[in-house]
Amino acid sequence: MAITLYDLCGRDERLRFSPYCWRVRMALAHKGLPFETVAWRFLEKDALAFANYDKVPVLCDGEQTVTDSFEIMRYLDKTYPDAPVLGKGASYQRALLFKYIVERSVNPALFRIIAMDLLAAIHPGDRDYFRETREARFGCTLEEFHQPEQGKQELKQALAPVRDLLRDSAFLDGDAPGGVDYLLFGSLMWAYVVSLEVLIESGGPVDVWFKRMLGLHDGMAGKAITIRDL
Amino acid sequence: MAITLYDLCGRDERLRFSPYCWRVRMALAHKGLPFETVAWRFLEKDALAFANYDKVPVLCDGEQTVTDSFEIMRYLDKTYPDAPVLGKGASYQRALLFKYIVERSVNPALFRIIAMDLLAAIHPGDRDYFRETREARFGCTLEEFHQPEQGKQELKQALAPVRDLLRDSAFLDGDAPGGVDYLLFGSLMWAYVVSLEVLIESGGPVDVWFKRMLGLHDGMAGKAITIRDL
Repeated sequence: MAITLYDLCGRDERLRFSPYCWRVRMALAHKGLPFETVAWRFLEKDALAFANYDKVPVLCDGEQTVTDSFEIMRYLDKTYPDAPVLGKGASYQRALLFKYIVERSVNPALFRIIAMDLLAAIHPGDRDYFRETREARFGCTLEEFHQPEQGKQELKQALAPVRDLLRDSAFLDGDAPGGVDYLLFGSLMWAYVVSLEVLIESGGPVDVWFKRMLGLHDGMAGKAITIRDL
Repeated sequence: MAITLYDLCGRDERLRFSPYCWRVRMALAHKGLPFETVAWRFLEKDALAFANYDKVPVLCDGEQTVTDSFEIMRYLDKTYPDAPVLGKGASYQRALLFKYIVERSVNPALFRIIAMDLLAAIHPGDRDYFRETREARFGCTLEEFHQPEQGKQELKQALAPVRDLLRDSAFLDGDAPGGVDYLLFGSLMWAYVVSLEVLIESGGPVDVWFKRMLGLHDGMAGKAITIRDL
């Protein structure tokens, strides 16, 4: 049965940058599951009414509808147990803990670096919505929140443990990539698709890993359209 | 064969506060392995010459000598595979990543809170050594580094993902404690043994978890001598 992923798109329908959707795309590719995407914009709430949800990713697998990126990864492991991404038991719990770490430290740092680039990458019709919801969350304007140098310092600090690990390991999950790689990669891909900012020290262990991730699964992420292509 | 752990002690020989030794004590208890400790002070380098190492923990298991807390946990899993603490494969890698996260974010925050308490808890004969080595590392005096309010803010931020996870889970590793619990607990125990500072919001998920950890394995950590008892 066909798998469909509702996937956030930007001012060009081919521009796909949601960190949460990227996690899922990588997990699907990891399992070798073919899928199609449906480009979705922030204001198209009606298109997701069938899922009783108001944001992406939403995954439709035959009759099954699953929402929330981590729940989708979990669903994929349960339904397609080969090539697990999150795993079970302590392995699963440790991936969940890392998900919270990425969302609490990496994502806010990245947002400070790319806030204005993100606004520019979004469909013009979505920009007022994006500005209002994010400014309410941050308690300041997007222009005030946009502090690339501060964000780069925060990102460097947030990624220090990742750098430690990648000095001796090809992937965060070991010799082969796994769910924890996809969780972090999704966030970095978000910034990479919409922004020309240099996020990571060139040639360092995180940069080498990121390029390795871009090449995975027939270069799926490496072939993605970014603002460099528009 | 008897297991012996060389364990840092303070101004009272019963005061045991090394975060790295606490990890190992908890891992030994987790596996139900009886062990004895040898109280060790910072300047007793000669006592560790047999291990070709200059700090603790050092574990002696019969003829085997193992140094470094994480290597000891790994050794215990290999030698006593029942009740794994780190696990294998992705599970192991995720524990290693969390080790780096604890050491890069939780430990520096705690150090800012307890720097002067730690100095006071150390044996008077070790204090010059401790001051010199730590001041060289920080690039400032211990008095300047000691910033409890700043440390508490940093700790709160560092523990935010832990709080997220513990809202729905008894332990970081799931329904039962595991290596990731011991990695974080060791660090908090370090501060708890030497300081009266309130580290964690009372009654919150992390506080409830910490008390649960104190009660594990016949209350091993809960029965430890702290500065409250001296």
